Amino acid sequence: MSTPLSPEIEARVRAAFDAQTMMKTIGAYVSGMGAGECEITLPFAEHIGQHHGYAHGGAIGMICDNACGFAAATLAPANTQIVSGEYKINFLRPAVGEKFVARGRVRRAGKSMSVCEGEVEAIRDGKPTLIAVMLATMVAVPDAP
Amino acid sequence: MSTPLSPEIEARVRAAFDAQTMMKTIGAYVSGMGAGECEITLPFAEHIGQHHGYAHGGAIGMICDNACGFAAATLAPANTQIVSGEYKINFLRPAVGEKFVARGRVRRAGKSMSVCEGEVEAIRDGKPTLIAVMLATMVAVPDAP
Amino acid sequence: MSTPLSPEIEARVRAAFDAQTMMKTIGAYVSGMGAGECEITLPFAEHIGQHHGYAHGGAIGMICDNACGFAAATLAPANTQIVSGEYKINFLRPAVGEKFVARGRVRRAGKSMSVCEGEVEAIRDGKPTLIAVMLATMVAVPDAP
Amino acid sequence: MSTPLSPEIEARVRAAFDAQTMMKTIGAYVSGMGAGECEITLPFAEHIGQHHGYAHGGAIGMICDNACGFAAATLAPANTQIVSGEYKINFLRPAVGEKFVARGRVRRAGKSMSVCEGEVEAIRDGKPTLIAVMLATMVAVPDAP
Repeated sequence: MSTPLSPEIEARVRAAFDAQTMMKTIGAYVSGMGAGECEITLPFAEHIGQHHGYAHGGAIGMICDNACGFAAATLAPANTQIVSGEYKINFLRPAVGEKFVARGRVRRAGKSMSVCEGEVEAIRDGKPTLIAVMLATMVAVPDAP
Repeated sequence: MSTPLSPEIEARVRAAFDAQTMMKTIGAYVSGMGAGECEITLPFAEHIGQHHGYAHGGAIGMICDNACGFAAATLAPANTQIVSGEYKINFLRPAVGEKFVARGRVRRAGKSMSVCEGEVEAIRDGKPTLIAVMLATMVAVPDAP
Repeated sequence: MSTPLSPEIEARVRAAFDAQTMMKTIGAYVSGMGAGECEITLPFAEHIGQHHGYAHGGAIGMICDNACGFAAATLAPANTQIVSGEYKINFLRPAVGEKFVARGRVRRAGKSMSVCEGEVEAIRDGKPTLIAVMLATMVAVPDAP
Repeated sequence: MSTPLSPEIEARVRAAFDAQTMMKTIGAYVSGMGAGECEITLPFAEHIGQHHGYAHGGAIGMICDNACGFAAATLAPANTQIVSGEYKINFLRPAVGEKFVARGRVRRAGKSMSVCEGEVEAIRDGKPTLIAVMLATMVAVPDAP
């Protein structure tokens, strides 16, 4: 990650991630964070498979969307939450590997909308292969009171 | 679902769905199928939440992508498998409800590529609200030998 | 078009369309408008071709994006302008025909963002064929003072 | 452009571009080409405007889609043509400038499908600003006999 984050922002963003039961369910964790950047790692496991036994594309989409969302969250005002407005993902190769690493990066930070880019690599026998690319729009909404 | 399926095709498509451990993990099931159409239902549960306690957008994306993929699978030749080439999803409203129903429909069936449309409704107190729309490209690949 | 528009709104939206020199350049015109709906027609002409002599996909994308944008404009407050935030288009068949008809429809109208669906038909020997589908996010920005 | 092209391939790809009357109509030209890469430049002109007097988003989408398509064409077999399967574009800032430069790059080259990334910069007073990003799927089809 290129630009370090203040400890307050990092703590706030990690708390939001940790509150997502869906991420616990698939076994994903934050493996890196910087200003406008977030990396999420998902170890392969049997309970996240599709019908060929690879990781499910939906799990890949989920961590990449989240990497983009939390990348946007690192730049968002303190009293806002980031939600996904929309995203598009292209799957380049099958999700085969011992783990998957999604990296999100803000390309355009706006007050209410941010545009992010995401990529997912499969790590197989320790070697990375690009398996998916994403474009996403993240929307900042005021915190619930 | 408008057009009925042959029992062989329905059995083949349901077997592929049932082989997806990811769907079992989130608790999703096929709730309808027709020629070029598939409906998947996901009851809300605590383990699929995001940080506001709603259902995670990734879970919504996952069932909608799958509804599109299995819709394409109903029209695919017997010795092929359908994989997601790409999809784009717009989230219209928060995923709040007791269950979520994703419907996928083939708009253009091709030999190697099909274009599908998906929609997801949240059912809250029994009333449906449209929460997401999708466009997806599904790719037919030969069965592994 | 299902729901009629007030004459003021229709006049305002048509004035914005008429101010787009790009639409004049390709020869496109508004062929229908309703609340949350807009239809744009583009006659085929030699100067909008791609390298096989069909209409250029970019011209198809342009009228579909515009149909979505002006659909959103029919529902927008008077002192705002609509700009395209993002869109995604799938091309289903080659753009062959004597004219092309794009229809945009608002699926979710928001104060600052609207999500729209678009479709384009090619009319060949008087018969319509669906050639493209779109999902788009339109953004309302305040009028320049 | 990082990797040079053989003269035959460059000639073939440029001939396809030159056969697109749509590109002549808007005034766009190929300003760079390499293996898996293509750059297209569009000078601003009055006849490509939208209703605020900026360049029309459709013109920006068109050159970016084309930059992606011709990037894919540089890697495609000799007896095939590249057509756009689908693309998604996010507009980051208004298209204001004296010219616009679109760059397309292949991220995954396949026999029948390639996934490309595109970016568009506006050049204003000689200074570049990123105004749009794209993900696109290009499809190789056999040459018409």
